[in-house]
Amino acid sequence: MIPESHPRYESLMTRDKIVEGVKQGITGMQGLIAQGRGEAFDYLIGEKTTPGALHAQRVAAATLLLAKRPVISINGNVAALVPDEIIRLSEAVNAPLEVNLFYRTEARVKAIIRHLRAKGAKNMCTKSDALIPGIEHERAKVDSTGIFIADVVLVPLEDGDRCKALADMGKTVIAIDLNPLSRTAQCAHVTIVDNIVRAIPNITGFAKEYGRSGKDELLKLVEGFDNKKNLADAIHNILKHLSSCELPKP
Amino acid sequence: MIPESHPRYESLMTRDKIVEGVKQGITGMQGLIAQGRGEAFDYLIGEKTTPGALHAQRVAAATLLLAKRPVISINGNVAALVPDEIIRLSEAVNAPLEVNLFYRTEARVKAIIRHLRAKGAKNMCTKSDALIPGIEHERAKVDSTGIFIADVVLVPLEDGDRCKALADMGKTVIAIDLNPLSRTAQCAHVTIVDNIVRAIPNITGFAKEYGRSGKDELLKLVEGFDNKKNLADAIHNILKHLSSCELPKP
Repeated sequence: MIPESHPRYESLMTRDKIVEGVKQGITGMQGLIAQGRGEAFDYLIGEKTTPGALHAQRVAAATLLLAKRPVISINGNVAALVPDEIIRLSEAVNAPLEVNLFYRTEARVKAIIRHLRAKGAKNMCTKSDALIPGIEHERAKVDSTGIFIADVVLVPLEDGDRCKALADMGKTVIAIDLNPLSRTAQCAHVTIVDNIVRAIPNITGFAKEYGRSGKDELLKLVEGFDNKKNLADAIHNILKHLSSCELPKP
Repeated sequence: MIPESHPRYESLMTRDKIVEGVKQGITGMQGLIAQGRGEAFDYLIGEKTTPGALHAQRVAAATLLLAKRPVISINGNVAALVPDEIIRLSEAVNAPLEVNLFYRTEARVKAIIRHLRAKGAKNMCTKSDALIPGIEHERAKVDSTGIFIADVVLVPLEDGDRCKALADMGKTVIAIDLNPLSRTAQCAHVTIVDNIVRAIPNITGFAKEYGRSGKDELLKLVEGFDNKKNLADAIHNILKHLSSCELPKP
């Protein structure tokens, strides 16, 4: 047990959620390592949503609302950290959830589906009858009525290889990745450099706000977005945050 | 199985060592998250030992050689990643190994002791009959003939609270921490901002090189070291590395 007096109590508690996910068979052990990487980058952006990330979240909401067949990809960390929030987003943008794991086992896929259904998820793609081209077999499996034919895919915490393969299929990829230098961040069309715990509820909020907007207004928002500028902005944010640390110059 | 063609194959294999540690009961699940944080910071320094870190490793070797009762603290990540290397360092500087866990369970302490003994460790402190003042009970347990009376403690990957408590006891603390902003990095007297996989063999190499040096020479090296400057240098290194990334200015 971590005492409440520990200065990093909140961060340690979030970790416990992920550890709990592993114990429940939802999160893979490599997911814990990914969580740690995320924590480090979150630390470097000051553990808050930057103005640039907030804008990318607006663009993500608009992109999902404009999509014909949007799908939200779910992995073990998403299922452990934001199960309720991702179901609300799924409902707000009318996009099914599809479980898509880097270290895929059928047992874990089923555990996550059960976990999300228990939380109230109704709109889910649960087949694995199609393959993403150019990816090793187990990792390539997707639903022929879900990610395989989606025009827009939201991938929170995705592997770089698969993000690229989805983009190569002509899909618009929205990624959530705290590392603006990662291949996933670089390959996606809209990269949200933020913690999923903050990002998902924000996107849902914007989707609800934009629900009554005209198509032209949303298109304008999407077309005006420059992901390269967005990523450069995220890197500059880290530089600014690091430079402000109170340490003597060498 | 990760295909060898994966661009991050080597990094993924290191992760597998840590996951294997968890399966063997050596590494705690929170240790996986710590590994991820380390990976992120390693990425930001370019995944190589910087000249500043190399200098801190020289100072660490000299400090350990000058110590009267040096002890090397071992946690689950150290035991999983560099068991052979830490035993060689222990022999080179004549410092016993003492298992010291953040999420302490007697089963895990015993598993690590067995693991290190199987690898050939002979010089170990294995009692838990003393307490570090100011730390919550379970986390405070140490060996009365080891860390408790040590004048110099090498703590690879230590928690900030405990690092501070050791320093408060008047001990010289050498920490290995990839995050130059962490409380551990800031509390230690000599902070090595490097991956333990690279740092431990380097310290051992310097210890062997300095074995024939006079005491005055080592003292000069230690006394000329400024940890605040060292940490500022590490932060500037990250800034330099990030600034050099090929992305357009926002």
